[in-house]
Amino acid sequence: MHLFYDTAITEETVHHQMNENESRHICKVLRLKDGDLIGIQNGNGLLATAKITDANQKRCAISIVSKETEVAPSYSIHIAICPTKMNERMEWFVEKTTELGVTEITFLLSKNSERKAIKMERFESIAISAMKQSKRLFLPKINPLVKVDQFVKDHPNGFIAHCYDGEKKSLMTTFDNCSPILIGPEGDFTLDESDLAKINGYQEITLGNNRLRTETAGLYACMQALMRVK
Amino acid sequence: MHLFYDTAITEETVHHQMNENESRHICKVLRLKDGDLIGIQNGNGLLATAKITDANQKRCAISIVSKETEVAPSYSIHIAICPTKMNERMEWFVEKTTELGVTEITFLLSKNSERKAIKMERFESIAISAMKQSKRLFLPKINPLVKVDQFVKDHPNGFIAHCYDGEKKSLMTTFDNCSPILIGPEGDFTLDESDLAKINGYQEITLGNNRLRTETAGLYACMQALMRVK
Repeated sequence: MHLFYDTAITEETVHHQMNENESRHICKVLRLKDGDLIGIQNGNGLLATAKITDANQKRCAISIVSKETEVAPSYSIHIAICPTKMNERMEWFVEKTTELGVTEITFLLSKNSERKAIKMERFESIAISAMKQSKRLFLPKINPLVKVDQFVKDHPNGFIAHCYDGEKKSLMTTFDNCSPILIGPEGDFTLDESDLAKINGYQEITLGNNRLRTETAGLYACMQALMRVK
Repeated sequence: MHLFYDTAITEETVHHQMNENESRHICKVLRLKDGDLIGIQNGNGLLATAKITDANQKRCAISIVSKETEVAPSYSIHIAICPTKMNERMEWFVEKTTELGVTEITFLLSKNSERKAIKMERFESIAISAMKQSKRLFLPKINPLVKVDQFVKDHPNGFIAHCYDGEKKSLMTTFDNCSPILIGPEGDFTLDESDLAKINGYQEITLGNNRLRTETAGLYACMQALMRVK
């Protein structure tokens, strides 16, 4: 069954009209007809099975046949990461963490960041594909670039992975089910940024003795946090 | 310091002549001169610091200045995986597992495999780069394609991840420090392959309730095994 994403679908929805883009995809690209079944996810715990009632290429109408819901997990895995110079490394980071079940991703701007702009739409579309592919019912929230200094003030008491000396522990023993995990850029956070995080209650974490690429560090931290909460 | 890979360097090496390819890279591309220092890894636990004694573009001569060695880990993480249709997904699997510390990778040919040929040189070159980048001293062994049936007979008593029903456990509680972990193709192993693995002593493992892409499953299994042994 083909899966579509539409945030307008709720537990109350009975009839619905798909937007023009999805209507074109359903009726023109996939050539689905009246009576055919499709799946619609709202990215917030709901998967509806729907029957096409009017296979219109601009305004495809559907009726909900059945619904499956899932309760949101009790934990939140929030990875705040400095985007890498090579954009495709961040794209796969978004794909993989979505497959595994990340809750929220924030892109950080460090003074050491080489990349200072990102394409949010591209990341969102990758996350939607990965959600469908992995049969997840929750779409991670993806937040636009914010400066490290601002982020640690707005979200105190998280975890920070950096390469400076420090009292570091593993997420496997310290992760608390909800606090953000900060992953630095290719050249690491600046010392000032790392100090400001600590002043704002951040605990220093280690991801092992080897030098991991930014995106590998982010994925590894996400997996460790998930194993801790599950 | 620029890092090079040369399996001929051993604990006994004092003087050495780099091969033509590396000599060209050292002297022509990087324009290093007599007296400059380079690092040479042998992929088997040794990192030598060497001084260039004759910056010849075809036969660059070096003298070893110092050596750093590392004992091989007591565990072995051997992932046997069916290559994905899209080759770049396997390339990043090799890069990421090398960064994290995989010991051995075998490519498997399942009756359900869409990809039936791989380029070994490309994977080896990616593993060498990832080894250098992550400052590891051991290069994973990468084995060419072998049929699933043959592999489970030659390597009995491993672990197999598949989507059929079964008595499945997590690697976090069952991994034994050395047995191979089998990851199937996009369409899963055939039932016959899965049964043959079980006859040969394979334990069935779960990687969670969500549908992971082949390369994500392989990486996740590698990370779980690593966390179990460390």
